Amino acid sequence: MAKITTKIDLYDKLLQKYKEIVLLNNISMLAYWDLETYIPSKGVEQRSEEVALLSGLLHERQTDPEIGQLLVEIKNHKEYSNLSEFEKRNLELIQRDYDQQTKVPKELVTALAKQTALAYETWKKAKEESNFGLFEPFLVEILDLVKQTANYIDPSKDSYDVLLDLNEPGFTREIIDKLFIELRDGLIPIIQACVKSPKQPDVSVLQRHCSESVQLNIATDIAKIIKYDLEAGRIDPTAHPFTTGFYDDVRVTVHYDENDFTNSLYGMLHEGGHGLYEQNLPRKYKYQPIGFYCSMGIHESQSRFIENIIGRSSEFWEFYLPKLKTLGKGIFDDLTLEPLVFALNEVKPSKIRIFADPVTYSMHIIVRYEIEKELFAGKITVADLPKVWNQKMKEYLGVTIENDAEGVLQDSHWAGGSFGYFPDYALGNIYDGQLLWKMEQDIPSWREEIKKGDLSKIVNWMITNVHQKGNLLQPLNLIKEITGQELSTKYYLDFIKKEYSKYFAL
Amino acid sequence: MAKITTKIDLYDKLLQKYKEIVLLNNISMLAYWDLETYIPSKGVEQRSEEVALLSGLLHERQTDPEIGQLLVEIKNHKEYSNLSEFEKRNLELIQRDYDQQTKVPKELVTALAKQTALAYETWKKAKEESNFGLFEPFLVEILDLVKQTANYIDPSKDSYDVLLDLNEPGFTREIIDKLFIELRDGLIPIIQACVKSPKQPDVSVLQRHCSESVQLNIATDIAKIIKYDLEAGRIDPTAHPFTTGFYDDVRVTVHYDENDFTNSLYGMLHEGGHGLYEQNLPRKYKYQPIGFYCSMGIHESQSRFIENIIGRSSEFWEFYLPKLKTLGKGIFDDLTLEPLVFALNEVKPSKIRIFADPVTYSMHIIVRYEIEKELFAGKITVADLPKVWNQKMKEYLGVTIENDAEGVLQDSHWAGGSFGYFPDYALGNIYDGQLLWKMEQDIPSWREEIKKGDLSKIVNWMITNVHQKGNLLQPLNLIKEITGQELSTKYYLDFIKKEYSKYFAL
Repeated sequence: MAKITTKIDLYDKLLQKYKEIVLLNNISMLAYWDLETYIPSKGVEQRSEEVALLSGLLHERQTDPEIGQLLVEIKNHKEYSNLSEFEKRNLELIQRDYDQQTKVPKELVTALAKQTALAYETWKKAKEESNFGLFEPFLVEILDLVKQTANYIDPSKDSYDVLLDLNEPGFTREIIDKLFIELRDGLIPIIQACVKSPKQPDVSVLQRHCSESVQLNIATDIAKIIKYDLEAGRIDPTAHPFTTGFYDDVRVTVHYDENDFTNSLYGMLHEGGHGLYEQNLPRKYKYQPIGFYCSMGIHESQSRFIENIIGRSSEFWEFYLPKLKTLGKGIFDDLTLEPLVFALNEVKPSKIRIFADPVTYSMHIIVRYEIEKELFAGKITVADLPKVWNQKMKEYLGVTIENDAEGVLQDSHWAGGSFGYFPDYALGNIYDGQLLWKMEQDIPSWREEIKKGDLSKIVNWMITNVHQKGNLLQPLNLIKEITGQELSTKYYLDFIKKEYSKYFAL
Repeated sequence: MAKITTKIDLYDKLLQKYKEIVLLNNISMLAYWDLETYIPSKGVEQRSEEVALLSGLLHERQTDPEIGQLLVEIKNHKEYSNLSEFEKRNLELIQRDYDQQTKVPKELVTALAKQTALAYETWKKAKEESNFGLFEPFLVEILDLVKQTANYIDPSKDSYDVLLDLNEPGFTREIIDKLFIELRDGLIPIIQACVKSPKQPDVSVLQRHCSESVQLNIATDIAKIIKYDLEAGRIDPTAHPFTTGFYDDVRVTVHYDENDFTNSLYGMLHEGGHGLYEQNLPRKYKYQPIGFYCSMGIHESQSRFIENIIGRSSEFWEFYLPKLKTLGKGIFDDLTLEPLVFALNEVKPSKIRIFADPVTYSMHIIVRYEIEKELFAGKITVADLPKVWNQKMKEYLGVTIENDAEGVLQDSHWAGGSFGYFPDYALGNIYDGQLLWKMEQDIPSWREEIKKGDLSKIVNWMITNVHQKGNLLQPLNLIKEITGQELSTKYYLDFIKKEYSKYFAL
């Protein structure tokens, strides 16, 4: 018994340290949430000093040598083999975090933080002036620093593979190549058929003025329908929507555009999907690594499932249109089901990723992935980016990029040093297809449930199969466990083909 | 030159440490603000763990032995005498904080924190049941712990004097006795005359339903009039109003009662006065001890000045009533100036401090002060409290306390271990009288300015004379410097007598 106590003592001590990191991180998230929602305009500078202090405190704790020591002691302990698989998974995840935080020299972390701050400001200016040349030297420098960082984390691996694994554990270029080639080759003919289809939606039916207060009422109503718990969450306005927090305090934000009510409506569905995931994590593992979400790709699958698979289905609108009309107090009275749903399912290649429809969206991601991969392999240089970008956009989406602002400069990710992250967005779609394939077997009536406006079975399925699994498994293993199959694009492509053939001549 | 650099190095190092404490404290204040305004109901427990961690981090830094060491090194440094008076004042204030934080043994701090948490819960229950006996043993324990604490901070002084000085630096029982006896003896006849006056206001004119959104519009309008900067502040709803933050991020909160619009209106004036003070502190001393407010009593003078001296004047309402009518969209149309102002200046002894009018308010404070003093002197015991309380309320205000809930149990201060704080509320009134006496000499047209709705001269006078002085002087010295006179109740009593003789037969 004494031995077990010793074992538990060390393990509990480590978990207590981890919990304090989580609490400190939650405080940082609150400071960030406030910065993006309610902070008075003049208070931003003050806040930046507070946030910097918190980052320092957080980094101090994350790199606390005692964590490294405890990990070693526990692994060498004679009781180690008696730990449960959950306990071992916790240790594995703490080790992973600790390595990431400690393997990179502090000077490199500081240099990257400094350079990304500068680069972000320059990127904004370059985008305004549509002048990639301005941003180019900063990106060259950042790329170099990111490569160095990846090399410190795992010198035995290709640096882009290191970044992919950081962002979506278990993934490599080899795995993503296979998935994205299938996805690309599957989507291109669908997109082309949609574009050429003689039947096209009239999206002008979506255009109307809708006040912020009506949109807030709609968002609140939607929150209830998707089972997002408003006693453990909030909906607040912001410029660039996000979700933050976990368990009992999960806050979504939406952007209200009075001339485009779909912005906040789909924003609520999307962020609400993220929120549901965070609210329904396994409570018994709260504050432990395994009590967190699995990966950002899985997170994205949860938001996109609610947003696109549920929120764009004709069944959802069959139920929701009458409610929308009531909440709109007249402004939606002219809408009818079929033209509305068709408009919400328009497929139209476009230049800007964040405004892309769900079908063409993945192609934007594939463009970025292929470019990042070639950049890290040295096959292209930073200077080549605009040309390569424009070529791929033409080839995959048939759009002609007129200038850098609507091309290579559109996203801030690279300015922030974020490489290897974009794939997660498309992986979310691929995961969704496979999850839906399984869910359909478990709940054959799922479309009927949506039509009734009762999402409880669907949401409970996600809670049981995804949310409650926390971070017990890496994404590829999670998908395998849930569906019994290796991850494949075929489920998603099948779904898209079937779904969109309702609207277009495919 | 080298010597000066050494001196400055140590001093700068100390100030940098102080700044980090301030930043951490600001983060705690944000967590508290959110807890009292927007936190989802289920998130409270999560937050309490975050707040506890922050308190621990703050305490660690406040008691950092390096601060004590730096203070000693700087004072023993040969360049010490070359420090400016501002620098020396900063050192004095850091020393004061450090002593308070380090002189009390950690076990005592923990015991008091634990006991107050328990006592607060018991106080709530005791108040609900109107049963002082339930609360009594907890209060006995807290009183003992507070006495011990005071004794650790300064064993050479009477413990109640230590507490008074902690709450309002420079004050003792001797000073407050003199002020409060004058105040009590001055106020009692005024109150009696008001009560006996044949002319009495009709307060029913204040009763009407006013929606929260109209009240928010009024509060926002009031904020602008008093020069509260909404780009460096916010107005949010809460249950128990407070103001938090400093300089560029100062947030006021108000309570909206749809059946009593004066609650949020005077709440905004009061909290706005606090807010103005924090927004206009001396920017060049930001993050330094001298860049903070002088004392809670001076803070209270700022809120009460705006709330009562300006906000209850007939000149204010001459200007504001038409604006109120416009904002009220009809609901205030029946109001006329004189009956309204008279109703807002009702003097009526009552049982509950927080609902008291400005004239009788100080008597509530005097009751608490006299009781606290006798309690610490051992002249009465905790068991005597209800009896003594009820006697004094009868004697000073002529009201008959029917039960403990409306008597000795009405405030939570003692449950929280807060003794020696109540006097600050009445000191705020006394300060106001003397500040106004001086302001009247500098701005003879001040009432005309209010009538025009232009508070710039008045607010600028406060900014120059009070806000911009930060914490350079202790309150008694600040008042002396501004007015050229020692602190006296006569200015306040003169003002009250003159002001209220406009309404009552005095």
